[in-house]
Amino acid sequence: MHSGLAGVTSHRSSVSSIIGTTLTYRGINIDEIAENGSFEEVVGLLWNGFLPRKEPLEELKASLLREFKVPDGVLTVLRGLPRDGDPMRVLQASMALMGLYDPDSQDNSPEANRRKAPRITAQLSAVTCAFHRIRSGKEPILSSGNGAAAGKKPTFAATFFHHLNGRMPEPVEENAIDKALLLHADHELNASTFSARVTASTLSDMHSSLAAAIGTLKGPLHGGANRAVMETLQKIGSLEKVEPWLTETLAQKEKVMGFGHRVYKDGDPRAKHLKELSKKLGELTKQPHWFQMSDKLESLLKERKGLLPNVDFYSASTYYCLGIPPDLYTAIFACSRVTGWIAHLFEQYADNDLIRPRALYTGPQEAHWVPMEKR
Amino acid sequence: MHSGLAGVTSHRSSVSSIIGTTLTYRGINIDEIAENGSFEEVVGLLWNGFLPRKEPLEELKASLLREFKVPDGVLTVLRGLPRDGDPMRVLQASMALMGLYDPDSQDNSPEANRRKAPRITAQLSAVTCAFHRIRSGKEPILSSGNGAAAGKKPTFAATFFHHLNGRMPEPVEENAIDKALLLHADHELNASTFSARVTASTLSDMHSSLAAAIGTLKGPLHGGANRAVMETLQKIGSLEKVEPWLTETLAQKEKVMGFGHRVYKDGDPRAKHLKELSKKLGELTKQPHWFQMSDKLESLLKERKGLLPNVDFYSASTYYCLGIPPDLYTAIFACSRVTGWIAHLFEQYADNDLIRPRALYTGPQEAHWVPMEKR
Repeated sequence: MHSGLAGVTSHRSSVSSIIGTTLTYRGINIDEIAENGSFEEVVGLLWNGFLPRKEPLEELKASLLREFKVPDGVLTVLRGLPRDGDPMRVLQASMALMGLYDPDSQDNSPEANRRKAPRITAQLSAVTCAFHRIRSGKEPILSSGNGAAAGKKPTFAATFFHHLNGRMPEPVEENAIDKALLLHADHELNASTFSARVTASTLSDMHSSLAAAIGTLKGPLHGGANRAVMETLQKIGSLEKVEPWLTETLAQKEKVMGFGHRVYKDGDPRAKHLKELSKKLGELTKQPHWFQMSDKLESLLKERKGLLPNVDFYSASTYYCLGIPPDLYTAIFACSRVTGWIAHLFEQYADNDLIRPRALYTGPQEAHWVPMEKR
Repeated sequence: MHSGLAGVTSHRSSVSSIIGTTLTYRGINIDEIAENGSFEEVVGLLWNGFLPRKEPLEELKASLLREFKVPDGVLTVLRGLPRDGDPMRVLQASMALMGLYDPDSQDNSPEANRRKAPRITAQLSAVTCAFHRIRSGKEPILSSGNGAAAGKKPTFAATFFHHLNGRMPEPVEENAIDKALLLHADHELNASTFSARVTASTLSDMHSSLAAAIGTLKGPLHGGANRAVMETLQKIGSLEKVEPWLTETLAQKEKVMGFGHRVYKDGDPRAKHLKELSKKLGELTKQPHWFQMSDKLESLLKERKGLLPNVDFYSASTYYCLGIPPDLYTAIFACSRVTGWIAHLFEQYADNDLIRPRALYTGPQEAHWVPMEKR
């Protein structure tokens, strides 16, 4: 029995690696990437295996910008949905619907899948922003790029911010979105990536596989954690309440969200970058207490339980300072991770093997049909 | 490396077992079940672990009948979808949308999940039938039971047939739907069931997990096979063309859909029951050639390649004789298998462990960030 498949190696992959506390994308340390890269460069790196040169990068940027819109049929659906609906359900449904409206809907060839990749990536972000605006009683942003400086095409991060908030971001806001997106883009065989590959292994198409991954990311043990972190911070309420809250929580043997990791035992290398963003944005937006509370919680948990923060912990306060409501955090995670899912789907389709483990049967061995009157 | 997780035991399960060529539901041989049971009894068996007594069975039947309708919000979406849309995409989107409209949407407790089970099962069938009628230019059936004999509540199979075709079925048609549904209801850790459990293992909810499973079932290596079988039969066209077609196909080293199985090496125990239904319905509907062609193909493939038919092979001609178009076969598979998925989700939630295998990293070990001008 390999419960949870812990430690079982199910796939070969060259997309990203986790060795000790080092995360790499295509062999490049995440620290180097966070310091030098943009989200679009990372997307090119993940999809192609190498850093894009100038021209292909411009092409990728252009196609992401061009496709940054919700297909009409999906937009009609979004306008009719309950406003209090869980954004992750909306994203999962939208991904399946996007498949219905995709010009390559029936074509699962490698070439068609390459065409779908930027389209799906940009549309998923557009859906996230549009649903949020609709549920807030605002009109979705239907055009991209018109808020950028003359002659300059806006980045994916800026476009995302614009579609979400109706204004172009300040440089520090744009940088925060960009870094958050690239830090979440891939993470080896995490549960949602594995889920995407399981679905694709029946040779199901990209949209169907990505909708599966969105459902998997939704869970509180995976992508749902960043939202739970923010809800915890809001519940605690202020810096001086952190210590008594933690004492009480640990006494009750309750889990603190955003700490520990199935794979990283000595700390998540992404946490420090998000910590820096959280601090900077807290100062900029004059709400430094979320960072201070987080920092305090980190020190105390390290001291008392030896636990270290993971990627979800500081993304919570980072997103909050960007004005993003907590119930949208997991959706934004999806908008980034979809690029890693796609890179893994390319691998899966290129060398497919149906994923079909066995169950250890624990039920009765020799049962028989019993007629109704004898039950 | 455990490619495809072949032979890896990832879960304990008491829902169904495959030992040699014997399939059991809760320890009862599928042959005994096919001979004696109804779909509703099987659903009770799968969900509870034992055959339902009279009163609980009546309750289950009543709730399946009561919930056999498309939620208004989902129906509005269905009416607006492209008529040529892939039904499996429509089902996946609908499952996610059903989650938005479910009265227990935010409640993932075991009690709420028990309430969701018959609702999801009946709604998924209702969605399948409604979409098919809408795309055929017909009005969806919005009420259940009014076509049944006075004082008698219609079965799930009869209700399904009624919602699909707008008339109550003949006894042989009802029996065929009933048997097809119960034979497809569960099958240990097949790819879609495993997929549902992977999604649920992040503690994501039932609708999200089942939408993942629908995406997985869609693939041609899994649920898509029955549709491919019928398309093959249609392509062959007539009995005398079976042999030349097969000779040519084998010479080209192409795969014949509906034969062989990852787990069953000595034949699929469900095939013989579907074979019987296919024969009976072919005679009833005066189109015996589909059965005859299938039978011929079976003999030849056994003789030439030692291959045996699986569950998909005779369900193709069975569904065809029931007047169901091939692109709906996988959807009907989903309408049945959803009951098994749900039984597995009950197990997963009762004893959860995050499913998170590892990848064998095959990429570069020591790559570095390269500035644009040096790429």
